[in-house]
Amino acid sequence: MKVRGFSASAVAAGIRKQGRLDLGLIYSELPAVTAGVFTTSLVKAAPVVIDMERLKAGMAQAILVNSGCANACSGEAGRQAALTTGALAANALKIPENLVQLASTGVIGEPLNVAAFDQAMPQLAATLSSDGFAAVAQAMMTTDTRPKMVEKSVDIGGVEVNFLGLAKGAGMIMPNMATMLCFVVTDARIAFPALHRALTVGASRSFNRITIDGDTSTNDTVLVMANGLAANPAIDGQTAHFTVFQETLGSILRDLALMVVADGEGATKFITIRVEGAREAADADRLARTVANSSLVKTAFFGEDANWGRIMAAMGRAGVHFDPAKVEISFNGVTLVRGGMAVGGEAEKKASQVLREKEIVVAINLQDGKAGAEIHTCDLSIDYVKINADYRS
Amino acid sequence: MKVRGFSASAVAAGIRKQGRLDLGLIYSELPAVTAGVFTTSLVKAAPVVIDMERLKAGMAQAILVNSGCANACSGEAGRQAALTTGALAANALKIPENLVQLASTGVIGEPLNVAAFDQAMPQLAATLSSDGFAAVAQAMMTTDTRPKMVEKSVDIGGVEVNFLGLAKGAGMIMPNMATMLCFVVTDARIAFPALHRALTVGASRSFNRITIDGDTSTNDTVLVMANGLAANPAIDGQTAHFTVFQETLGSILRDLALMVVADGEGATKFITIRVEGAREAADADRLARTVANSSLVKTAFFGEDANWGRIMAAMGRAGVHFDPAKVEISFNGVTLVRGGMAVGGEAEKKASQVLREKEIVVAINLQDGKAGAEIHTCDLSIDYVKINADYRS
Repeated sequence: MKVRGFSASAVAAGIRKQGRLDLGLIYSELPAVTAGVFTTSLVKAAPVVIDMERLKAGMAQAILVNSGCANACSGEAGRQAALTTGALAANALKIPENLVQLASTGVIGEPLNVAAFDQAMPQLAATLSSDGFAAVAQAMMTTDTRPKMVEKSVDIGGVEVNFLGLAKGAGMIMPNMATMLCFVVTDARIAFPALHRALTVGASRSFNRITIDGDTSTNDTVLVMANGLAANPAIDGQTAHFTVFQETLGSILRDLALMVVADGEGATKFITIRVEGAREAADADRLARTVANSSLVKTAFFGEDANWGRIMAAMGRAGVHFDPAKVEISFNGVTLVRGGMAVGGEAEKKASQVLREKEIVVAINLQDGKAGAEIHTCDLSIDYVKINADYRS
Repeated sequence: MKVRGFSASAVAAGIRKQGRLDLGLIYSELPAVTAGVFTTSLVKAAPVVIDMERLKAGMAQAILVNSGCANACSGEAGRQAALTTGALAANALKIPENLVQLASTGVIGEPLNVAAFDQAMPQLAATLSSDGFAAVAQAMMTTDTRPKMVEKSVDIGGVEVNFLGLAKGAGMIMPNMATMLCFVVTDARIAFPALHRALTVGASRSFNRITIDGDTSTNDTVLVMANGLAANPAIDGQTAHFTVFQETLGSILRDLALMVVADGEGATKFITIRVEGAREAADADRLARTVANSSLVKTAFFGEDANWGRIMAAMGRAGVHFDPAKVEISFNGVTLVRGGMAVGGEAEKKASQVLREKEIVVAINLQDGKAGAEIHTCDLSIDYVKINADYRS
């Protein structure tokens, strides 16, 4: 499967370490309608600031992405460095500078190795190919253990429309708006308002519902480029075509977000915290997020210990009102807590067996209303600490 | 040094495991003016709820404390169990039930072993001694590696007034009001309003300024009992005597709080996050707390990596407004960041040396005002994960 008009390439540019893919390029034959969502952190990396400025026009033709250096907390010099790398790509591709989107990931506070970009750019541009996306997914990786790529095709008004999505991310993940790096390209023909709306809704149901360690990055970026080459019938906000488009984009974002959690730093378990029976969705969200980010809850899952008391304790400090004496908690359908207390009997033994599984759904029912929320996370393991204690060495 | 009229004892009651001290008793010859601060968690353990009710009278004569079981999320049965253990102590000591304060720590959600209390009570009451406090400090321990006790004497109006404080706590620590268990006894003569005020101020400057893992417990309790046997001149809110009393109590609470952080689960470093130059103290507090609770910051300290970028990233997501381009950050006086960027040169090498030390002060200056805040924490180590993955087994 190809996405019409899109190509990609990656090289080992030696940005921080030698001999590993660390620089990628995504290119569309013609300018593409492009929407983005970015980190809500007050401390934004230089490429994020530049992308946000450029995306006011709603168009882009290329994405230049590197690992090894976040180009964050790098001041005016960092901004100039990012602009220079964008200009190098624009020159090589013979497109306007402001149609280049930039994305960086890696260590914060170190200067961007512009010379490495300069040296690598001719090869990067020369090797663009419709098969190059897997290499870009590789080049984006930091502590990821595997590349993350999803492809889909759908029928829109009798025309085959293709999508390809890439993501990276394994730590510093607790999106508030977007998270980590994710790029989706599609040959769909769609106007900017509809694309932007589909992306915003899609991100809120995918990347905004995952957390690995509660730390939001300075560089989080999700971009979707639609170059229109499928020549499908118009996709407007209210049509059935829009629904198909939105659902397809949404499912790609969701697949990639879940791949990110499953590849969480040191993760051994994929955990869904589902809060139901809340009065307000915002309350449910806050409770689910507090439980999902509790170090004590996460270490208990790593230890395969059905320690539901830590879940109750995390809920208690979430700053949300609920009645502890009504709470029900189950692990993969095994009810452990009813009326805020242990159900007793065989329940805990059964729950301990459930915890040996790789995927666990913790369902928390507040018995107080009809609202709910779901957050996906992973456990906190010895390897998480090892990875993050040694990251820069 | 003795605190007049106070005695204590501890026994191995077999509440959860055999052969370790797990039940302690503190007793005053006559009823003592008593103030308390308790967890702000919505999920409060049974003994916390009972203590709060009883302390409306501002008096107590005994504290019964156990480890091995938190008696939290235990419903009406848990409340009855707590009341029964209090009645057992009241009977043994021949004092009214409502003068017994209760405190429990340990696993949440398991039933309290009342039979163990019943069996142990005669010995507990019979062995009360002015030398028994160290044994109580032992009996309160869960994952603590050492007991925590502080003694002080001061002169108030020509009279020697004595204080003795005990604390336990090593995990599930991020006080919002009080935290973990802490008991201070003094023979000072002081009225309830002054005692309550001194405790509230003291707790806000001690236990409310520490965090190990961001998890607030269901059982946090700080009690201070003053039985008046020193017969010192009256201590009223506005007198110099009050200042001496408040400073002494405050320093005891602070010493104990810092001992708790230094004994944080798996901790290898004692870390102070000091935010200065903020416009509002509340902003400084929120920034310091967000940095102190960041898993990525804490693992970097464990790895002795001067990864200041993670500090900037944590600040960026704190939800507080500041200018990243003005930020200065130093580690034990070595300035690493100026104008929001690396200072470069030898700074990072020097900072790496500083990180080998056991105590580290991270000073963050926002250059935006005169307010500040300080939070004490520890690193996140492999042992933290091991301790909490295996806690119940």
